[in-house]
Amino acid sequence: MKKIAIIMGSDSDLPIVKQAIDTLKEFEVPMEVRVMSAHRTPDDVSAFAKNAREEGFGAIIAAAGKAAHLAGVIAAYTTLPVIGIPIKSSTLDGLDALLSTVQMPGGVPVATVAIDGAKNAALLAIEMLAIEDADLERKFIAYREKQSEEVRTKNSSIDY
Amino acid sequence: MKKIAIIMGSDSDLPIVKQAIDTLKEFEVPMEVRVMSAHRTPDDVSAFAKNAREEGFGAIIAAAGKAAHLAGVIAAYTTLPVIGIPIKSSTLDGLDALLSTVQMPGGVPVATVAIDGAKNAALLAIEMLAIEDADLERKFIAYREKQSEEVRTKNSSIDY
Amino acid sequence: MKKIAIIMGSDSDLPIVKQAIDTLKEFEVPMEVRVMSAHRTPDDVSAFAKNAREEGFGAIIAAAGKAAHLAGVIAAYTTLPVIGIPIKSSTLDGLDALLSTVQMPGGVPVATVAIDGAKNAALLAIEMLAIEDADLERKFIAYREKQSEEVRTKNSSIDY
Amino acid sequence: MKKIAIIMGSDSDLPIVKQAIDTLKEFEVPMEVRVMSAHRTPDDVSAFAKNAREEGFGAIIAAAGKAAHLAGVIAAYTTLPVIGIPIKSSTLDGLDALLSTVQMPGGVPVATVAIDGAKNAALLAIEMLAIEDADLERKFIAYREKQSEEVRTKNSSIDY
Amino acid sequence: MKKIAIIMGSDSDLPIVKQAIDTLKEFEVPMEVRVMSAHRTPDDVSAFAKNAREEGFGAIIAAAGKAAHLAGVIAAYTTLPVIGIPIKSSTLDGLDALLSTVQMPGGVPVATVAIDGAKNAALLAIEMLAIEDADLERKFIAYREKQSEEVRTKNSSIDY
Amino acid sequence: MKKIAIIMGSDSDLPIVKQAIDTLKEFEVPMEVRVMSAHRTPDDVSAFAKNAREEGFGAIIAAAGKAAHLAGVIAAYTTLPVIGIPIKSSTLDGLDALLSTVQMPGGVPVATVAIDGAKNAALLAIEMLAIEDADLERKFIAYREKQSEEVRTKNSSIDY
Amino acid sequence: MKKIAIIMGSDSDLPIVKQAIDTLKEFEVPMEVRVMSAHRTPDDVSAFAKNAREEGFGAIIAAAGKAAHLAGVIAAYTTLPVIGIPIKSSTLDGLDALLSTVQMPGGVPVATVAIDGAKNAALLAIEMLAIEDADLERKFIAYREKQSEEVRTKNSSIDY
Amino acid sequence: MKKIAIIMGSDSDLPIVKQAIDTLKEFEVPMEVRVMSAHRTPDDVSAFAKNAREEGFGAIIAAAGKAAHLAGVIAAYTTLPVIGIPIKSSTLDGLDALLSTVQMPGGVPVATVAIDGAKNAALLAIEMLAIEDADLERKFIAYREKQSEEVRTKNSSIDY
Repeated sequence: MKKIAIIMGSDSDLPIVKQAIDTLKEFEVPMEVRVMSAHRTPDDVSAFAKNAREEGFGAIIAAAGKAAHLAGVIAAYTTLPVIGIPIKSSTLDGLDALLSTVQMPGGVPVATVAIDGAKNAALLAIEMLAIEDADLERKFIAYREKQSEEVRTKNSSIDY
Repeated sequence: MKKIAIIMGSDSDLPIVKQAIDTLKEFEVPMEVRVMSAHRTPDDVSAFAKNAREEGFGAIIAAAGKAAHLAGVIAAYTTLPVIGIPIKSSTLDGLDALLSTVQMPGGVPVATVAIDGAKNAALLAIEMLAIEDADLERKFIAYREKQSEEVRTKNSSIDY
Repeated sequence: MKKIAIIMGSDSDLPIVKQAIDTLKEFEVPMEVRVMSAHRTPDDVSAFAKNAREEGFGAIIAAAGKAAHLAGVIAAYTTLPVIGIPIKSSTLDGLDALLSTVQMPGGVPVATVAIDGAKNAALLAIEMLAIEDADLERKFIAYREKQSEEVRTKNSSIDY
Repeated sequence: MKKIAIIMGSDSDLPIVKQAIDTLKEFEVPMEVRVMSAHRTPDDVSAFAKNAREEGFGAIIAAAGKAAHLAGVIAAYTTLPVIGIPIKSSTLDGLDALLSTVQMPGGVPVATVAIDGAKNAALLAIEMLAIEDADLERKFIAYREKQSEEVRTKNSSIDY
Repeated sequence: MKKIAIIMGSDSDLPIVKQAIDTLKEFEVPMEVRVMSAHRTPDDVSAFAKNAREEGFGAIIAAAGKAAHLAGVIAAYTTLPVIGIPIKSSTLDGLDALLSTVQMPGGVPVATVAIDGAKNAALLAIEMLAIEDADLERKFIAYREKQSEEVRTKNSSIDY
Repeated sequence: MKKIAIIMGSDSDLPIVKQAIDTLKEFEVPMEVRVMSAHRTPDDVSAFAKNAREEGFGAIIAAAGKAAHLAGVIAAYTTLPVIGIPIKSSTLDGLDALLSTVQMPGGVPVATVAIDGAKNAALLAIEMLAIEDADLERKFIAYREKQSEEVRTKNSSIDY
Repeated sequence: MKKIAIIMGSDSDLPIVKQAIDTLKEFEVPMEVRVMSAHRTPDDVSAFAKNAREEGFGAIIAAAGKAAHLAGVIAAYTTLPVIGIPIKSSTLDGLDALLSTVQMPGGVPVATVAIDGAKNAALLAIEMLAIEDADLERKFIAYREKQSEEVRTKNSSIDY
Repeated sequence: MKKIAIIMGSDSDLPIVKQAIDTLKEFEVPMEVRVMSAHRTPDDVSAFAKNAREEGFGAIIAAAGKAAHLAGVIAAYTTLPVIGIPIKSSTLDGLDALLSTVQMPGGVPVATVAIDGAKNAALLAIEMLAIEDADLERKFIAYREKQSEEVRTKNSSIDY
């Protein structure tokens, strides 16, 4: 199976990014996790992105806050789908990171999820791999059903 | 090759969505284009989404404006990756559609592109299919190189 | 008397939604409270909405956060008035939920109240039932008068 | 049948408000249309609102732009449901009118529709009257079905 | 000397409004402080506003949050200058109250100060009274000079 | 009678500012109109502001766009009330000018009116002068009554 | 004298960027103008930025719209000061470009000017060069004085 | 070496501004730190700005919150480059200060950094001085390399 890369711009993003790591683990999807900054280690980012497909990655998840350029910079150097997680920081409630990630100009897309939406970034990567992987899709269906059951359980136990 | 579905909430979205259609045509990726509304024909939307994988689709692009629920509603009924295009309408400059599309709760992701970013929605779908399709990836690399050359041509001809 | 349905997208919305429950109790308006998700249990939502009128409901209150599709999805499946409560979540201060709820396209309205405005959602449902119910209107007048008196009491006791 | 009142804060709002008038006419719901300003004719507004129920109104639609106080002021003087239409004006794209209309404090609700959402304001009023009016509900179902058919017609004729 | 009225929409606004009270006390400007709600006690508000000039008031300060209609409603009933203080509440960081207060339509102005800017509301009222009151202006000049001195003291003691 | 100063940061603001000029003319309030920039002629601004009271002004209206510092800078140099008109420019729809004008720190208030709200700026200045001027107040009452009559005329002639 | 580089992400930015070019010409500051995209020609951008100091540049101006990464990416590869011009595009009125340019994380600054503020970008570059260049400073003083005179001329000729 | 001035509008800005002070100390760049307010001590601000170049300053950093006029006012009185730090205050999350600082009209630029971006303000000042100072540039390169190494250390030690 192809690996998923999870890149975060700063290790302070780890508490949010952990939801993506845990979700991939739950699906037993192989992954590598890196701290790389579009602004502080730009050559590391471009080198990683240029080689990612050859190194067996199927998609790249990039998490960054503020003027979040990381996902867009990675997308500029790879033909793999890049998933951007805008991270909320101390000002503007994540709106800066959202717009910096999603408003990519024509030609170089970033698949953007919600602010701090790390779990969904992992699920989106899994959906991409599952296009051609029936086993993974079955796991995904089971995950969705479990999720539905949790809502139903809460519904039946609500006390008012 | 898997097909791409392009769903728009209203035929008034077609001038924007056409950029996605044209891009998929340029890559010779098979597609189907539909007008379906999460609010006016909800049963058609859910029926389509539930059967999309079996009918040979590999990814679904959904374009809608205002309180843009279409991509999220489709995502609720399929395990295929869903790409959302927020469409700018007559008020709020597309911010309503962007937030309605991207801010999905945990469990059901939508891969959101820029407001009116239909070309990138198509490119993202192509990237997803190209994860396991070396021919399509080659086309994508050539597309990117042509795009780079266009920038370089403009650079060399700029008159100031 | 017709019943009021209160649907919340997640049980984490209950602390806010409780204000609607308590207000309906104060007016002795019959109600049912459910946890159902537009994205995680979409078929439950549509089944509920399609049958709500026949099951004796007169209006439906729907509370959801982030890309809050719940009220709009319910409105797509019923001819009952649907009241949307946008719920503030951890980012964007509720603006995402507000726009996702209120900016409905022409044809399928949602009666939207303030962010976290659960008490007003209940009062609005009561006003709807009171159009044809003189007893309920009398209770509503008394409620309003009590409310006015509370303001006047505070006015007379203000210490500066 | 109860009448619907449509109040606009300025006659410059009429091009938008006309969609509400036309929709009520299509349903043959009786209505009265007024120009009254919360700021320029406040006593007219309060007098109207206080007597609206006795004069046979079942709901009040109020349209205003900028610091749109009209719906809230009317709601303060009546126990009828009040539907607010925020009108986009020359600055801020309607956001000012939306927040001024929807963010009502607890105790006095306004059922807010989308910016410039006059058609939905009328449909919401019709839904309220239809809670206890089976004939009107039948018309509403037919309206919705026609609306669905229009989407399906567009779907079948889309040319790409 | 003319009195200043300070009206707040809810007694929960008092911690902010207190800065206005204290400032007026410091200048020995006579005042009356009231809790009155544009939505919960609208007749009290209009009665107060209609009589304010005759009762010896020279300006009215109105503080309210959310869809803050209080200042605008008072302005509709008086020819005295009305100063609006937008109060920050639990969502939207005061933007709703700011726009609801400042974006008044042509014909009925509200002199708006910063969100939670109660001290400046009092100073503005004092400036208005001081147009024709040389004694009050002298106090105001002294206040400003003391204020400047405080900044200069901080400047000279800054430790870095 | 005291004069009103109208200062605009650029002569491109004149089409909006003209509404203030015309309103003051209608009330026969004496005025002077200036083009002065907080950034391009700062010494002219401070010299004007420091002497304004002695030169017979009773209030100062300042209009500026973008990072609109003009009103605040004037307020720093005078004890007269300063009224700020935020002017909409080519980007951000006037929000930048509104926040730059209204969000003044404690100690130096600016009485802010709506974006492009020049007519209300003049009316507010008139209200300030009318605190101690019974003749001017009578004119103001007549103006308001005429304004109410215009609304009533529109109300009686509305055609639907 | 050091040269100034002006880089734009797309030749569609030229109408705005031209104001920077014209301003530098007016000051006879040597410059080079390029079209280079952080996303479409990223290697060209990094190569240019890495060598800019050696090639005699003293500062770099970068103009881009939407998710404007250009200035930040250049800043990551050079120790020269980088000035960012956020360009307004078809949605969101330039807010996306502003936040993507200005909200740089700690360690890699971008000196951001106003949306579409190309003239000021050039003036800022001139100020930087003028820190150590008395001749250029004299030109700058003359430019400022001319600018002041233009305001004064407009002031003296205003007709009201 | 030229000195850097750091001016803050209020001593409450010191906890943020301290990051600029510490960064300049780390580079052994001489500095002076002042508390001066554009609104409370405007003459001190203009006197300082007019003389700053002669007193040996090479650039001025100005930090202010809310309607942050400080940087713009300083820029109006000097030909030195002025760097603005928008400070987040109790409402609006710093957006008011950002727009008040960055949206300067043509002719008088302010080099704006991120909200609360004091460290980057210092680095930007250093970059400006380093245009003509090879020693300082070497220190800056070393600083950047250390910064890169810190990211790489975090990358190698991440535990997932």
